[in-house]
Amino acid sequence: MLAPRLGQRTAALRSTASACAPPLPLPLPLRRPPRPPPALRRSLATAPPPPPASPGGSAPLTKAKRVRFYRSHPYWTALLAAPFVVTGSLGVALLGLWAWDASTFHHPHASNVPIDPLALNPKRGGKKNLKIAESLVDDLDARKVNSSGKAKKRLVIVGGGWGSVGIVKNLDPDVWHVTIVSPDNLVEPLRKIIARVGGHFFAGKAIDVDFSERLLEVDCAGHGENFYLPYDKLVVACGSVNSTHGVPGLENCFQLKTIQDAQAIRRRVMDNLEAAALPSTTEEDRKRLLSFVVCGGGPTGVEFASELWEMVNEDVIAYMPSILRNSVKVHIIQSRDHILNTYAEKISEYAEEHFRRNEIDMILNARVKEVTPDKVVYTVRNKETGETKEHELDSGFTLWSTGIAMNPFTQRVASLLPNQYHKHALEVDAHLRVLGAPLGTVYAIGDCATIETRLVDHLLEFVERADEDKDGNIDRKEFAKMMGYVKRKFPASKKHFAKIENVFDKYRRENGTLGLNELADMFLEISKKITALPATAQVAAQQGQYLGKKLSTLGKQELDETALKNGVYDDPDDMLYHPFKYKHLGSLVYFGGAAAFDIPYFQKAGDLWAMYAWRSVYLSETVSIRQLVLFLGDWVKRSLFGRDLSKF
Amino acid sequence: MLAPRLGQRTAALRSTASACAPPLPLPLPLRRPPRPPPALRRSLATAPPPPPASPGGSAPLTKAKRVRFYRSHPYWTALLAAPFVVTGSLGVALLGLWAWDASTFHHPHASNVPIDPLALNPKRGGKKNLKIAESLVDDLDARKVNSSGKAKKRLVIVGGGWGSVGIVKNLDPDVWHVTIVSPDNLVEPLRKIIARVGGHFFAGKAIDVDFSERLLEVDCAGHGENFYLPYDKLVVACGSVNSTHGVPGLENCFQLKTIQDAQAIRRRVMDNLEAAALPSTTEEDRKRLLSFVVCGGGPTGVEFASELWEMVNEDVIAYMPSILRNSVKVHIIQSRDHILNTYAEKISEYAEEHFRRNEIDMILNARVKEVTPDKVVYTVRNKETGETKEHELDSGFTLWSTGIAMNPFTQRVASLLPNQYHKHALEVDAHLRVLGAPLGTVYAIGDCATIETRLVDHLLEFVERADEDKDGNIDRKEFAKMMGYVKRKFPASKKHFAKIENVFDKYRRENGTLGLNELADMFLEISKKITALPATAQVAAQQGQYLGKKLSTLGKQELDETALKNGVYDDPDDMLYHPFKYKHLGSLVYFGGAAAFDIPYFQKAGDLWAMYAWRSVYLSETVSIRQLVLFLGDWVKRSLFGRDLSKF
Repeated sequence: MLAPRLGQRTAALRSTASACAPPLPLPLPLRRPPRPPPALRRSLATAPPPPPASPGGSAPLTKAKRVRFYRSHPYWTALLAAPFVVTGSLGVALLGLWAWDASTFHHPHASNVPIDPLALNPKRGGKKNLKIAESLVDDLDARKVNSSGKAKKRLVIVGGGWGSVGIVKNLDPDVWHVTIVSPDNLVEPLRKIIARVGGHFFAGKAIDVDFSERLLEVDCAGHGENFYLPYDKLVVACGSVNSTHGVPGLENCFQLKTIQDAQAIRRRVMDNLEAAALPSTTEEDRKRLLSFVVCGGGPTGVEFASELWEMVNEDVIAYMPSILRNSVKVHIIQSRDHILNTYAEKISEYAEEHFRRNEIDMILNARVKEVTPDKVVYTVRNKETGETKEHELDSGFTLWSTGIAMNPFTQRVASLLPNQYHKHALEVDAHLRVLGAPLGTVYAIGDCATIETRLVDHLLEFVERADEDKDGNIDRKEFAKMMGYVKRKFPASKKHFAKIENVFDKYRRENGTLGLNELADMFLEISKKITALPATAQVAAQQGQYLGKKLSTLGKQELDETALKNGVYDDPDDMLYHPFKYKHLGSLVYFGGAAAFDIPYFQKAGDLWAMYAWRSVYLSETVSIRQLVLFLGDWVKRSLFGRDLSKF
Repeated sequence: MLAPRLGQRTAALRSTASACAPPLPLPLPLRRPPRPPPALRRSLATAPPPPPASPGGSAPLTKAKRVRFYRSHPYWTALLAAPFVVTGSLGVALLGLWAWDASTFHHPHASNVPIDPLALNPKRGGKKNLKIAESLVDDLDARKVNSSGKAKKRLVIVGGGWGSVGIVKNLDPDVWHVTIVSPDNLVEPLRKIIARVGGHFFAGKAIDVDFSERLLEVDCAGHGENFYLPYDKLVVACGSVNSTHGVPGLENCFQLKTIQDAQAIRRRVMDNLEAAALPSTTEEDRKRLLSFVVCGGGPTGVEFASELWEMVNEDVIAYMPSILRNSVKVHIIQSRDHILNTYAEKISEYAEEHFRRNEIDMILNARVKEVTPDKVVYTVRNKETGETKEHELDSGFTLWSTGIAMNPFTQRVASLLPNQYHKHALEVDAHLRVLGAPLGTVYAIGDCATIETRLVDHLLEFVERADEDKDGNIDRKEFAKMMGYVKRKFPASKKHFAKIENVFDKYRRENGTLGLNELADMFLEISKKITALPATAQVAAQQGQYLGKKLSTLGKQELDETALKNGVYDDPDDMLYHPFKYKHLGSLVYFGGAAAFDIPYFQKAGDLWAMYAWRSVYLSETVSIRQLVLFLGDWVKRSLFGRDLSKF
């Protein structure tokens, strides 16, 4: 039945296929397309007749006419086909997604993988005679040896933030047997990232380290006794805690370090709003509940204050009694003259202008003295008279975000080593190796690390290498050579030695050389000019990437034992790889529907356009495609439905 | 520059527009399209040449040739155009979304809405002399009077679950001044739903009620003293708590009632998996940590056990040491012969088969005796010998989901009223009015309510109304009339009076009538056959919808004071509205990539197809478009990225 009908139709079509197409002015690009010809208008107004139920009749003729029309009006044909093409493509995409979804509902049964008996019954050792995790329960799935049969080197990373992710994503899994120790996985599900390099993860807290035996002690929060994790190289990347500045009552503050922190803050803010709406709440209590105090005018404090303000103004106003909106007050206490004082002046000014417009209360030049459950006590110093005056602020919620300090593990590491004097972080050299630890075995990155800037500590070493005639003086030629060493060891000093001639001439003695005193003065002055890297995700991520790539290179070389034995690489980090160099991609601050950029050679702040730019940069920095999609999804959700008012 | 070039091109096109199209066999539908002609193949293989930089030369001729080809091959033209059309449409959609998003970043400032002074300084009263929330702070925004200037009636709802949402979504905001009291908003952000009817929400706990003065006492969890909320009608919809069955140690169990519960469970499960992967964990501890015990074989228990099994098998296996997968054990303890024993036999059997295949351990005919932090003690009764034997099960996580009980507020309400003897819930009549409370002022719906089934309690009332000749006997004609009353008051009894003739003949005495004894026997037998409605979201939502619609109707009539004064409506619920009738849409149980349906006249269980059907039904039952989209989004995320391994 079908075949003859098809044949007949095709014949009918063929008979008209050679007919001449009538001339038609084609639509001009960039202009409104002309009205469709009458025949098309008719066919647009009424649905085309259904194909005939039986062959014969006048239908094939109509069909042939239509086909002739389509063939002679290709633009209109394409236009008419467009909706079908779009719908069809979407349908195919959905079907594909469905098929994929359906295909993922398989339930693989784990085969019984053999387990190294040593993993189940570890030996004991080390100073504290703890179990040593020489072999791990998943070593036989994840392989302890590399593709050429050699045992992999052990890399242990403490912490699971941006820095660790940066390392793992750049690591050669054929070289390193990697284990991450962190009480939480913070950035995004670490397990998946680690699985890609056949690595291991332990949800524990590093609490001590034995540099001589290369053992890291891990506390498992109540699950069995502590154990030792052996390493060939250790990376400390465990971030920081908020600096207390010795202020009493910080247990009454919220902090914003982890996702749990963010959830707790959200719950508290919503609880306060709900409590403020209760009829039993007095006017005074309502004002206190709706007074939000942010201690610290850095990027975290500024972004939080803006987010809070935006939430209250966009959503709360629509769904809660308007008395709440009128009573909400956001305060930000900053110890300096300006908020965002580490940013370019332009950015700082824009942020302050934005805050003033939104009636966010900025309290500048103020120091928090004490925090109680419902109050923040602070002092403000009058710059002219020098007097300090004490003030009190009712607070229903206090956020503490005033700089960083060492966490207990970092403190422990610093206490074990000589040459660690920095207050907030572990000092590392330009290769990110922790100063004082056995060379090339301990690295530190991210918030818990700071790159040394004291050139003068290495003065004698530089002179030793550069003073070719051993006369104790550095002449112009020797100085040029010395500058090479200095720049290699302190890459951040590079821009301060802009013109060697000038520097040399500025300090040189009358005899045309530099002595130790002159060099020391020069080094001290330059050290002062070097600023420490900020405690940002950007720095941590770049350091992680650098270390991941470097360790892959070093690891391959170290596995080549002849090279090692010949002692070619007494300082492999320096011989085989360049020092770390930070590439500032720009700082971004986002505040309530606006954003500010602080990019090299470009400072700019603005409303909508800056916000979208911020988003795109942020997106390009996210960890994975997965996170990117989820992130974008969240924005779309926010646009479509507003912020979620639920507490979860 | 542009215009002449365009003109020239158009002229070139026109000159070829009247050329005859060569004959071409058109592709047949349902067959593979023929190979594109050589000219097209060439143009597909090499990119088309860019448009000429200057007019003239041979380029216009090539262009004209191409156009002639497009015009004479409309099908191929459409095919070639498709990618551009699709990309273009997506682009337009994205642009639209962006424009919308950008337009939502406005920041409305709340105008100063006047507030009733009574709202800020409420009067005191009631038995406990508490503040009475006569007027609320947002009454002037949300309006206490209706469109015709009359004061709205006060409706107070206790609880924020499916039932409450059902009411609010069906309520006429012009009639009712609605206030919801709930310590949490459970289903989805209630505030938004309430805002649509200009209603109010208090994050508090109802703890007592004064029926005579119509005051509900609310505890605000530390924010000020308790207060009274006055009502005209009160709806108790505060759900239930898990039944303890007097088992000691339930503080060691997790429950699954709220979203916080679900989050806590997820965290605990992930913590256990992480702890089991630690080298310091012994073999014994690992087995205990990975032993998950579910107490209760109802739908909650079954769905949870399946979800857990699926999570472990789909995701954990891919990212965690395989020793974990091999040690994980899920147990389910059920007091009856079968799991899902309230469902159709077919469903129950399918679920058991599914569990056996997945090696989920079903412990049947067992009663939990005690739960300790790391053990579940249970007894199994041997059906043949009648002996009970005690067993112990190591447990790293115990879920308690064994039926429902009254929460403290429901208990308090029941204790204040006569005729409330039910153990698990408040008894209500067919109009959902709480028995014993002042008629038409207190309703109860959802898990905390059960519809009375004791016909015999109303025996004398029925006889009174039906016995027309007042001879104390019910003859066939009077019985037919009586059945009308009974069915109205007990709609659930309807199907058990299938044929009145038969029922009458079964019980009638020799004189052809029924006396009180015969009627009592008949009523008792029928009561036994009526089954209580299950404690499901479906019942709660239907009762909420019913009540919302009814209250809108009643409210309008009650506002008509003449009708009230004339005493026309001494029982307005019964006079103006039909009793509640539950329409069973089917029960659905979802277990790990499979689902079971228990729909009237249709029981079915299966794998993939059933899961998709389950999804579509579930979707159609979700609260709002917003939730639906988020829900679908979650599924898509799961398909694309797997379950989230992070704990948040």
